[in-house]
Amino acid sequence: MITLASDFGSPYPAAMRGVVARESDARLVDVTHDLPRQDVRAAAFWLRFVLPEFPPAVHCAVVDPGVGTDRDALVVRAGDHLLVGPDNGSLLPPARALAGDAASPGNRDGDAAPEVFTWRVDDPASSTFHGRDVFAPAAAAVHDHVFADGGDLESLDRLAPADDHVDLTIPEASVGDGGADGEVLVVDDFGNAITNVPGDAVPGTPGRDAPDAVSVNGESVPLVRSFAAVAPGERLVAVGSHGYLECDVNRGRGDEAFGLGPGSSVSFRW
Amino acid sequence: MITLASDFGSPYPAAMRGVVARESDARLVDVTHDLPRQDVRAAAFWLRFVLPEFPPAVHCAVVDPGVGTDRDALVVRAGDHLLVGPDNGSLLPPARALAGDAASPGNRDGDAAPEVFTWRVDDPASSTFHGRDVFAPAAAAVHDHVFADGGDLESLDRLAPADDHVDLTIPEASVGDGGADGEVLVVDDFGNAITNVPGDAVPGTPGRDAPDAVSVNGESVPLVRSFAAVAPGERLVAVGSHGYLECDVNRGRGDEAFGLGPGSSVSFRW
Amino acid sequence: MITLASDFGSPYPAAMRGVVARESDARLVDVTHDLPRQDVRAAAFWLRFVLPEFPPAVHCAVVDPGVGTDRDALVVRAGDHLLVGPDNGSLLPPARALAGDAASPGNRDGDAAPEVFTWRVDDPASSTFHGRDVFAPAAAAVHDHVFADGGDLESLDRLAPADDHVDLTIPEASVGDGGADGEVLVVDDFGNAITNVPGDAVPGTPGRDAPDAVSVNGESVPLVRSFAAVAPGERLVAVGSHGYLECDVNRGRGDEAFGLGPGSSVSFRW
Repeated sequence: MITLASDFGSPYPAAMRGVVARESDARLVDVTHDLPRQDVRAAAFWLRFVLPEFPPAVHCAVVDPGVGTDRDALVVRAGDHLLVGPDNGSLLPPARALAGDAASPGNRDGDAAPEVFTWRVDDPASSTFHGRDVFAPAAAAVHDHVFADGGDLESLDRLAPADDHVDLTIPEASVGDGGADGEVLVVDDFGNAITNVPGDAVPGTPGRDAPDAVSVNGESVPLVRSFAAVAPGERLVAVGSHGYLECDVNRGRGDEAFGLGPGSSVSFRW
Repeated sequence: MITLASDFGSPYPAAMRGVVARESDARLVDVTHDLPRQDVRAAAFWLRFVLPEFPPAVHCAVVDPGVGTDRDALVVRAGDHLLVGPDNGSLLPPARALAGDAASPGNRDGDAAPEVFTWRVDDPASSTFHGRDVFAPAAAAVHDHVFADGGDLESLDRLAPADDHVDLTIPEASVGDGGADGEVLVVDDFGNAITNVPGDAVPGTPGRDAPDAVSVNGESVPLVRSFAAVAPGERLVAVGSHGYLECDVNRGRGDEAFGLGPGSSVSFRW
Repeated sequence: MITLASDFGSPYPAAMRGVVARESDARLVDVTHDLPRQDVRAAAFWLRFVLPEFPPAVHCAVVDPGVGTDRDALVVRAGDHLLVGPDNGSLLPPARALAGDAASPGNRDGDAAPEVFTWRVDDPASSTFHGRDVFAPAAAAVHDHVFADGGDLESLDRLAPADDHVDLTIPEASVGDGGADGEVLVVDDFGNAITNVPGDAVPGTPGRDAPDAVSVNGESVPLVRSFAAVAPGERLVAVGSHGYLECDVNRGRGDEAFGLGPGSSVSFRW
């Protein structure tokens, strides 16, 4: 299986699908092509969220503001998964989740660290669309060599261990007994402002034995188990499906109601 | 085959795709993930429109404003199809169309009523993303048991006949000899305002022997066979591909030109 | 393999996927369903850009402002590919690229001209959704006859050589030694204004031995190899992945910064 993820919208991903279908018989699954544009950290967050749900696969993930510069192309081995994409840090948080060495909601049992390789890029046909010209062919070649033919990743001619590479760590919140100080990592399509404060920082379980409300940047907001616990249009704090606290509105946009966007500071007190 | 439908936009559906691909070898086809947000009736309308085109499959359809409440998870048997989703009525209109007992544009020959079962949900990992944590695994399990292994649906451990369930009926228009009074069910991406007045309420066939114009809420509008029958920017009434009268503009938005939205009353006279 | 492309957005393409999955065992790949609405020339441009990346397939491509009129349905043979869609010219530029007789970025080695056939349409169920009622079934039938069963395209009952058909040629720029006069063909999702001036009209290679800047409608703009060569928010001209000059902004919208839209005249001087 080869999965494709990007911030390319439409119709550019079709060219990547075509290349993969032409070069490989692998099953092809789109993750999404609507990742936040050129936002490497948001890409890392979302890929870390969704890729651990997949069976072992080659994940071709291209959010690449440095396309056309001399940044490297990477192949990362993470447990039974392989990731292919640009050397800008976006692959590392999902790779750590897949390899099982990070405190990730999508964690697996293993404890190996990801191994990072560079993929040699010959002068490409295009300097603006490496998704089509570099990463899709690399994903197809890596898939067929390792998954279809059972070869060693290391025996691929274009591959070499990476001397160094860009790393990226999703920032951690500061958690204490009475609260946590963090920031908004991403805002999703629904307008939910997802923070980096882990849900288990809150004492107890929302809707059961946790406090009924928390303070968000000084204002009291219901802490609930699900959106439907407050009336439509009302604000709420919940533990999202990624395991983090998020600032939401039932049937509305939390980012607007709370005045929060990616990078905004959020201080919770309970 | 497992189909996926939701109002999740992007990138959440990727997690559902991952779960299904991990749990089952079923062919996976996306229906859409852009159903109108948390609009159960619109979901029922669109699912009833598109699902009858598919071959027998497990259809996992999640528009779920009650996620995290104690609403049940359902499995509905409808002819050779199975539907999996929340107990909020959204599955019933498409199930009746698939089972063949409703006057549906996508009707089949059969005449069986849908059979409704509950799916036992263990305390889920998340109270906000049952698409990933409840319905996708249920769809995979149901598919593999029934479609892959040829087992009886009833022999699934988590399944029990539903004592009761939420039903939903798409409202019917009041049709007379000289006209019909109905409402707008949905507005599509093109801005077409789709009503619940069946096209065959109109005497004759538009563009052939039907009246050249109808009155829509008191104003005369051309009744045509296709958009191209009026000039760009002009209003028209046509029988849409779902079999209902719709209020449209050639290369424009009918909802704006007619001042109509979901739930608006529409009175046609001919 | 059957590919699907349209301007239908969501959820209408689901009905096409259902029909194809019901009528054929072919692998199904979506190209895009967000082609510019009812813009035949833009469809031709994008299809010419992406379809040549695919392996031999039946490409069902429906951008069809004339739906419901008596325009023909076409099947076009282009090398090892077949295209199915409305007779409005949209299929011809991609067919020439696939057949290999045009100066196309996605050109192949062959030199055959596309062969155009009409597909006989019986009175369809709907006069507004030929994607579902005409073209998807035609694509499935053509695929199974030719690709699955190895039959001759010509032996299909509904097929006849087209006496005539609508052609469409993407306009060519006027290129001289000191510059080129062309127009904007399409604006992509990123806001990049893609012109019809071929990249090789510029002397040398941008970022290497080409001029550092060009004049765009009288204003000097950096000519670069990649977006990252200018600061965020700055304008640039680059050779896009389709081989044409495009007017862009690094991490911004070129169409707005340059005041350009589809059809706008663009005069480059170097």
